[in-house]
Amino acid sequence: MVQLTMEMEKVLLAYSGGLDTSCILKWLIQKGFDVICFVGDVGQKEDFQSVKDKAIKIGATEVVVKDLRNLFVEHFVWPAVKMGLIYEKRYLLGTALARPCISLALIETAKEFNCMYISHGATGKGNDQIRFELSCYALNPHLKVIAPWRLPEFCEKFQGRNDLMEFAKVNAIPVSASLKSPWSTDSNIMHTSFEAGVLEDPAQIAPDEIFISTKSPMKAPDTPILIEIVFNGGVPIRCVETSTGKTFEQPLHILEYLNQIGGEHGIGRVDIVENRFIGLKSRGVYETPGARILFEAHQDLEIYCLDREILRVKSLLADRMADYVYNGFWFSPEAEYVKHCVEESQRTVNGRVTVEIFKGNCWAVSRESLYSLYNQELASMSVHGQLNPSAATGFIEINAIRLKEHYRAYHNATPNNIKGLSRNFSRVKLT
Amino acid sequence: MVQLTMEMEKVLLAYSGGLDTSCILKWLIQKGFDVICFVGDVGQKEDFQSVKDKAIKIGATEVVVKDLRNLFVEHFVWPAVKMGLIYEKRYLLGTALARPCISLALIETAKEFNCMYISHGATGKGNDQIRFELSCYALNPHLKVIAPWRLPEFCEKFQGRNDLMEFAKVNAIPVSASLKSPWSTDSNIMHTSFEAGVLEDPAQIAPDEIFISTKSPMKAPDTPILIEIVFNGGVPIRCVETSTGKTFEQPLHILEYLNQIGGEHGIGRVDIVENRFIGLKSRGVYETPGARILFEAHQDLEIYCLDREILRVKSLLADRMADYVYNGFWFSPEAEYVKHCVEESQRTVNGRVTVEIFKGNCWAVSRESLYSLYNQELASMSVHGQLNPSAATGFIEINAIRLKEHYRAYHNATPNNIKGLSRNFSRVKLT
Amino acid sequence: MVQLTMEMEKVLLAYSGGLDTSCILKWLIQKGFDVICFVGDVGQKEDFQSVKDKAIKIGATEVVVKDLRNLFVEHFVWPAVKMGLIYEKRYLLGTALARPCISLALIETAKEFNCMYISHGATGKGNDQIRFELSCYALNPHLKVIAPWRLPEFCEKFQGRNDLMEFAKVNAIPVSASLKSPWSTDSNIMHTSFEAGVLEDPAQIAPDEIFISTKSPMKAPDTPILIEIVFNGGVPIRCVETSTGKTFEQPLHILEYLNQIGGEHGIGRVDIVENRFIGLKSRGVYETPGARILFEAHQDLEIYCLDREILRVKSLLADRMADYVYNGFWFSPEAEYVKHCVEESQRTVNGRVTVEIFKGNCWAVSRESLYSLYNQELASMSVHGQLNPSAATGFIEINAIRLKEHYRAYHNATPNNIKGLSRNFSRVKLT
Amino acid sequence: MVQLTMEMEKVLLAYSGGLDTSCILKWLIQKGFDVICFVGDVGQKEDFQSVKDKAIKIGATEVVVKDLRNLFVEHFVWPAVKMGLIYEKRYLLGTALARPCISLALIETAKEFNCMYISHGATGKGNDQIRFELSCYALNPHLKVIAPWRLPEFCEKFQGRNDLMEFAKVNAIPVSASLKSPWSTDSNIMHTSFEAGVLEDPAQIAPDEIFISTKSPMKAPDTPILIEIVFNGGVPIRCVETSTGKTFEQPLHILEYLNQIGGEHGIGRVDIVENRFIGLKSRGVYETPGARILFEAHQDLEIYCLDREILRVKSLLADRMADYVYNGFWFSPEAEYVKHCVEESQRTVNGRVTVEIFKGNCWAVSRESLYSLYNQELASMSVHGQLNPSAATGFIEINAIRLKEHYRAYHNATPNNIKGLSRNFSRVKLT
Repeated sequence: MVQLTMEMEKVLLAYSGGLDTSCILKWLIQKGFDVICFVGDVGQKEDFQSVKDKAIKIGATEVVVKDLRNLFVEHFVWPAVKMGLIYEKRYLLGTALARPCISLALIETAKEFNCMYISHGATGKGNDQIRFELSCYALNPHLKVIAPWRLPEFCEKFQGRNDLMEFAKVNAIPVSASLKSPWSTDSNIMHTSFEAGVLEDPAQIAPDEIFISTKSPMKAPDTPILIEIVFNGGVPIRCVETSTGKTFEQPLHILEYLNQIGGEHGIGRVDIVENRFIGLKSRGVYETPGARILFEAHQDLEIYCLDREILRVKSLLADRMADYVYNGFWFSPEAEYVKHCVEESQRTVNGRVTVEIFKGNCWAVSRESLYSLYNQELASMSVHGQLNPSAATGFIEINAIRLKEHYRAYHNATPNNIKGLSRNFSRVKLT
Repeated sequence: MVQLTMEMEKVLLAYSGGLDTSCILKWLIQKGFDVICFVGDVGQKEDFQSVKDKAIKIGATEVVVKDLRNLFVEHFVWPAVKMGLIYEKRYLLGTALARPCISLALIETAKEFNCMYISHGATGKGNDQIRFELSCYALNPHLKVIAPWRLPEFCEKFQGRNDLMEFAKVNAIPVSASLKSPWSTDSNIMHTSFEAGVLEDPAQIAPDEIFISTKSPMKAPDTPILIEIVFNGGVPIRCVETSTGKTFEQPLHILEYLNQIGGEHGIGRVDIVENRFIGLKSRGVYETPGARILFEAHQDLEIYCLDREILRVKSLLADRMADYVYNGFWFSPEAEYVKHCVEESQRTVNGRVTVEIFKGNCWAVSRESLYSLYNQELASMSVHGQLNPSAATGFIEINAIRLKEHYRAYHNATPNNIKGLSRNFSRVKLT
Repeated sequence: MVQLTMEMEKVLLAYSGGLDTSCILKWLIQKGFDVICFVGDVGQKEDFQSVKDKAIKIGATEVVVKDLRNLFVEHFVWPAVKMGLIYEKRYLLGTALARPCISLALIETAKEFNCMYISHGATGKGNDQIRFELSCYALNPHLKVIAPWRLPEFCEKFQGRNDLMEFAKVNAIPVSASLKSPWSTDSNIMHTSFEAGVLEDPAQIAPDEIFISTKSPMKAPDTPILIEIVFNGGVPIRCVETSTGKTFEQPLHILEYLNQIGGEHGIGRVDIVENRFIGLKSRGVYETPGARILFEAHQDLEIYCLDREILRVKSLLADRMADYVYNGFWFSPEAEYVKHCVEESQRTVNGRVTVEIFKGNCWAVSRESLYSLYNQELASMSVHGQLNPSAATGFIEINAIRLKEHYRAYHNATPNNIKGLSRNFSRVKLT
Repeated sequence: MVQLTMEMEKVLLAYSGGLDTSCILKWLIQKGFDVICFVGDVGQKEDFQSVKDKAIKIGATEVVVKDLRNLFVEHFVWPAVKMGLIYEKRYLLGTALARPCISLALIETAKEFNCMYISHGATGKGNDQIRFELSCYALNPHLKVIAPWRLPEFCEKFQGRNDLMEFAKVNAIPVSASLKSPWSTDSNIMHTSFEAGVLEDPAQIAPDEIFISTKSPMKAPDTPILIEIVFNGGVPIRCVETSTGKTFEQPLHILEYLNQIGGEHGIGRVDIVENRFIGLKSRGVYETPGARILFEAHQDLEIYCLDREILRVKSLLADRMADYVYNGFWFSPEAEYVKHCVEESQRTVNGRVTVEIFKGNCWAVSRESLYSLYNQELASMSVHGQLNPSAATGFIEINAIRLKEHYRAYHNATPNNIKGLSRNFSRVKLT
């Protein structure tokens, strides 16, 4: 456990401007630390100047705001699209990807300011504490982490929101007048997540007003829109609005455009219960407009381009990678290795996909690639050509060997104990 | 290869009433066979009486029409829902499931009529020939299969549709006046599939008029509908339309209702390129309204109920099972085994899911289960209770051991050849 | 963390009679606990009476010695044989299997004696603490665990062996005169393990004198011995020494016999570095004579009996199960599930294997089974029969489709950027 | 099917000098082909001059003998060692690796001599036909293959060995006086395989006289020998006989040395039943002295060096690769991809392993590496240092969450239908 000494040691605090990290900032100062605040801009649409002012007012020695949006899109979101990462088949990992990105910046900033401690406001039940800390330990194991929400002293002092409010009042920490939201939100350029509060009952339908970056499909335009996305090596390199010809090529611009258009059309909402790394289930609601569109387009093109067996292997690896990322192991030997392997499969995922977007739906409707193994002539039902039709006879005959052997062994067998071994085959009866 | 002798041997022909199998019927008779026609009703909405009349007219000795709808839904569709089967992440296997069902009935009928041959009209490039024949060989390896579209003699005689038309004319086989559809269709109670013809160009957007069991989302009602689905042991046992209280409990009734409501709301369309067993890629368009709703509801409940690690294993197994089914191995030792294992995981998938359906979208919005491992109090962000917050500190510390060791080995290392081994960690720079 | 109160609360201590647990026993008494000692006989060849006397002398309220050998063999070793469990391809899990067995007995005994605490002497770096505690929490989460080697208070007091010796002396705890072994040992009827001390340097060859249950292959008899092992449902049900006809049928008797004969012939030694659950690597030396013979025999029969595809799936599952067991999750939802699935595959693993044993080697040399899918006539190179030889032509032709398509796409391609995508094919040159 | 025309088309025949390929050579000439014979030296210890003379005598237009030993060792055996390939846990793939190597040379030779046909003597039931032909189709799909043992015409003419003998006599094909061996053998520098004949009964113990490259362990030296093997990037780069200092560094020299020493000490024999690609089981006996030693040494070093989680992924991939190789897909998109991924994991498999070799046994007894993640101080049982012992408490507590939740859900539950869901936990009783 961290020894909190009284010398003026420097802490770099991941600061959001909210009530929790504001109280933590003050508390760390009171514990004798020299606190530098770090604010990473991963696209969360914050008034960074006022966050900065607030931190200074509370007593931060320095406030560092870094624009991480390009880093995030190019080195975290794009690889996730390229690998087709999805957790438990539905969650696109928006928060899980942002944490190592912010951690990378934290580590660099800690080095810059010569801090030996890093602190954050993540709680002891969540995934984020793990993602932050494992990233930090992987990148610089000499750093120490102060996680106040896991320190008995801190938890005793602050047993609920009221204690924080009281502490804020006493210490002249500005508190926004607005009432506490009945759920908690985390936002970045890839997605917005909602959890806790009223969402904690999975039977309770999520209120429509929680969503902030997507329109309800019910209020979305009545006309579909077509978008062309061009991929090279598995990553989007161009995005064209078919009707207008508007074109985007920078990663950040592509994602911003798709967020805007996807948000307008209600794309990318999910409401799920997921398995946290620590072994709890929790309910999360997410809206991921642009990245959802990219996920669908990439998946379509990938299956179009890749050999079937490569696809099978890649798919297994991507599932593992999604678990690594969710669990906080973005920076780890295994993620580094598997990322390399999955990315290797993407060398031929080059081409163009057209997606149709309409009231919450996003479908690939057309795809083209010079690298596809699709062979129209070979596949054609109207031409015999290229493939000797009788080849399939041998193919089937050989594939049937195992089945016939199984039949021979279990259906011809006379001893009573062999009968009945093969259950399903005999269980299903017509009448 | 099958020896076509001239004695009056009995063939059971899987007959559809279409041009291909009508010509095959006549051709088999001309080759000296005694042909019995089998028509399996898996929900394809056919006028079975006229199919029967046509076969008799052409010369079939007998025509057997069997209603396989309950068999299909209860022993093929329901298990697929229970196992969460999906091929290459998008195809719900509607045709792949119907083939072994029809084969089972074929085998029983062949036995009844003492036929030693089975014949079908599937082509030599497709999956269906394999699914039919492997099913037959698994269930009765003594049967022989005549697949005319793979016999050189037949293929030479019938090189295209014109040859079939000509043969039909000469042999007084009735041909429906309607023009050939510009694509081919296969339909059953689970889905309708479309392929070939204009769909053979994957860049060509599928024309909206191909769809027959779903409305376009653009023409679907403007009001969402809520449906409650109750599962027991992973299979749906009740389905309630929330607004009206209309309730369905028989498998066939549940599926028919969901097809109707899903069709009305444009649910379950996909347009994909898929990998066929023989190694080709082909483009398929599918509409699977009811089963899509069930798939979404089941997936939601499953993640809600199952332990995370069971879910991981089950998920791997279900992916394998989907490949088995797609490739025609429904009746096989491995499918029998894996089916057992996947189904074993479903014992606690009991509960209720509410899905919202709107213009092509189908989302789970609420779920309840007495068997869920979700623990609201434990998960709650507003209560410390139950979980010692400092436990996570140890958890993270231990999980960091490997990461720190990796750092120690590769970042502290002095020899030049060790540096650079760990690429990603150092590659990403903030600039 | 456990609150050590001063009331007379009852602790059940897993007691070995060694220096560590003797000091822990005294220390717990000094902390005010009422301590009951539990000694589980899993075949470790201890003088249990003197262990008992020692505990009483130190101050234990009660000492419970339970013979767990049958429980261990039948419910832990036999399932491991049946599942073919092996960790990281070389470790047969002897200790990992004993821990949940002992835990099961601990839990039952704790209930019997109404203890709410369980204590053990496992250290904070090892696997055993985890195996004990996860087993206990799975079986009765209301129990609390006292792990002195992880309590700061205890660790400070006892910083090394000298402190324990001193404490023993002061508290009149009998200490065996013998010097501390230069490595540590754990023994049960399945295996003996050695680690720590001189073994901590993986480059250091393990001294031959460490082994206690196997002769050195160099000193083993010069004549091989043949043993027949009969399996039913994947577990050994009879074991016959071919030369003498000596027969064993009880699980415990089979294992004891194979340990004796295997030990005599130097079977089952391994010297490995393994990955511990907490993320360390550690070096372990093991001798597992009888179980190694069973592993080899079972593996041979399994491949002989099972369908290839079932074997593939089973093999994946068994690898997962080995990790679960190694990591302490024998009692867990996932292990329960996967164990069921793996065992399901063993229904047809029935038959007889003859193994030859000679100076450290153990080979299957003959196998027979009524359930095997081996078909001598079909496999025979001297008979064409049963299999149409030209079928393979079609089989190969169809399997080549993907390969030819790959060639077509990448070798015929003209654009420069496509060339070179397929590296290996062109890289290897004859020169 | 191949159209055998009467023009003088050129065939390249994979020629062994044996009865089968000699008859095929003559038969092809009689069919009007211009036949060039190809003999690949993969270390099979043949008198290549007399093989050449024989072919010329029979009528071959040309005979090409190519020394493929370095190609085989460096591009097939070494990668297999590096990847740790083993089929069904026991077969090191000696033949499966030689086939694509020979095919590569065949393709190049066919190009050189402008042949459009390739022919071989592999039978229609085995794996080799598939390995040859898939390799050829992958490397040059324009080539055509003549596989006489699958042509009805050829099979009818030659129904057994007697027909071949008769044909040889009539056509003045020299036949070696020696009687036919009661099993068939295939040999290369990696291994020798035995199958068919008396080995076709898996219950029959393989006669000791079949082995040709290994001494019986019973006749092996009474003194063990130590060998040091140095790996770099997962491949052996140096091999030192400890007692003499004899050192080998060229791949071919290393393998030859290890074959000699391994053969002398009886290393690398296995007797197995394996699953062929076409779905049969067959019995094979193999001796693989040198490669077995390398396999053991590599496995030991790999686990010593690699991160645990990388090892898990690598291990899954290597199992797939072994299947690809066994099934003839060495040259395939998937093998190319997976090979790349597995090899990527080997970048840090650098170090030295000492193996002890004695009468059929081969154990790693010592290992050293600058790249290992083994940390002696951290692993040490005698030092607390580096690791906070109480961290494990939190680690266990968090890992127990799922287990406790499972208990809560199923053991506390009151409804009857929930009880009993968790079988094993309650099934095992102490009595």
